[in-house]
Amino acid sequence: MRNSKVPGVTIERLPLYYRYVQRLDRYETNVVSSSELGKRVGIPAAQVRKDLSYFGEFGRRGVGYEVDSLRYHLEKILGLNKTWPMLLVGAGNLGRALVNYRGFLEQGLEIRAVFDNDPGKTGSNIVDGLKVEPLENLEKRITELSIKIGIIAVPVDSAQEVAVKLVELGINSIWNFAPTLLEVPSHIFLRNEDLSVGLMSLIYYSANYESGKECSHHIEKNSEDK
Amino acid sequence: MRNSKVPGVTIERLPLYYRYVQRLDRYETNVVSSSELGKRVGIPAAQVRKDLSYFGEFGRRGVGYEVDSLRYHLEKILGLNKTWPMLLVGAGNLGRALVNYRGFLEQGLEIRAVFDNDPGKTGSNIVDGLKVEPLENLEKRITELSIKIGIIAVPVDSAQEVAVKLVELGINSIWNFAPTLLEVPSHIFLRNEDLSVGLMSLIYYSANYESGKECSHHIEKNSEDK
Repeated sequence: MRNSKVPGVTIERLPLYYRYVQRLDRYETNVVSSSELGKRVGIPAAQVRKDLSYFGEFGRRGVGYEVDSLRYHLEKILGLNKTWPMLLVGAGNLGRALVNYRGFLEQGLEIRAVFDNDPGKTGSNIVDGLKVEPLENLEKRITELSIKIGIIAVPVDSAQEVAVKLVELGINSIWNFAPTLLEVPSHIFLRNEDLSVGLMSLIYYSANYESGKECSHHIEKNSEDK
Repeated sequence: MRNSKVPGVTIERLPLYYRYVQRLDRYETNVVSSSELGKRVGIPAAQVRKDLSYFGEFGRRGVGYEVDSLRYHLEKILGLNKTWPMLLVGAGNLGRALVNYRGFLEQGLEIRAVFDNDPGKTGSNIVDGLKVEPLENLEKRITELSIKIGIIAVPVDSAQEVAVKLVELGINSIWNFAPTLLEVPSHIFLRNEDLSVGLMSLIYYSANYESGKECSHHIEKNSEDK
């Protein structure tokens, strides 16, 4: 099913296809074409077909993809047919927002443990049934819950230290929301989510709009137009 | 300076170049090569040169880009040499996180007005000197502050309604954090920031890691490897 030669851009687009197919499913559409998928994600139909072909042949020429089947395959490819318990370090506003983010809950993606070094925060519920724990509990909880994915939502100054700790304790994938570049060993998967990057591209378009240039772009993150 | 033929992927990468060059500047590096820039963003050097060439010739063959000059040009291209006042609708956890996000403040990107329809939130300070206002104030404040950029951080069910309102009142760029697809007129620039998309690609890598496949990817959002 999985192929290590799959380009990063393809992997970044799989969730976009999945999100769209999920929405289609609700309205009981049976078939979706590569050009329709491409339009939503902002890439040519041929690229959609190429992306999906890395994982097998589940479309039919001239017809498209069966929505149910495509959804099923994307779930398997993305690993969403299993549970991936996650932990979060940082119980500030961003941490709270992530724990409550409806987009995660809809996908069954659940943050199972939350940590903070502020004694004013530990012990309290960040959400019903989920208490903020001190960092000393990290090791115990990572083992107990078999957690491999860690989300970092701490201030810039402590992000590197937290990353080192998570790697030491066996976390293999880190999603970093602190706007700083982290150093981790090369076998760790690190995703930096620098929100100011998104904002800067928005400003680019707004600046162009102001200067009277054409501006007609609706994008999902990571879309590609060529 | 600006060219309407610039591909969306290039525009998405400009902030990544800018963020890196900004960091270099602090350590007083004088020159940066396209291969170094490419390495940080995860694309080939040739693509970096192509991306930047849309905006003029500011690199030197065999030498690279002067850090100061590249930073200056990227600031101008991205419109960061001007102020872009923004408004935020939704004073929940995510809204609070965005108002306080250090990555924005570092770039001088400031949320100048915050709105919520919850009377329990309006009137209180979301941060020092910034009060949450009722939605009735939208029109007045958009005019007063000449705001063209709106951030939506409301629950899924009210996101579309808020978007329609913002467009009516003259907002031209919308950054949507509600995990739902919004319908806006084609002259509006809409950026959907569905955080579950990032999480799903993280899970893909974690799933691959578990199954013993090689996994060595450090990515910045929107990076491309081919």
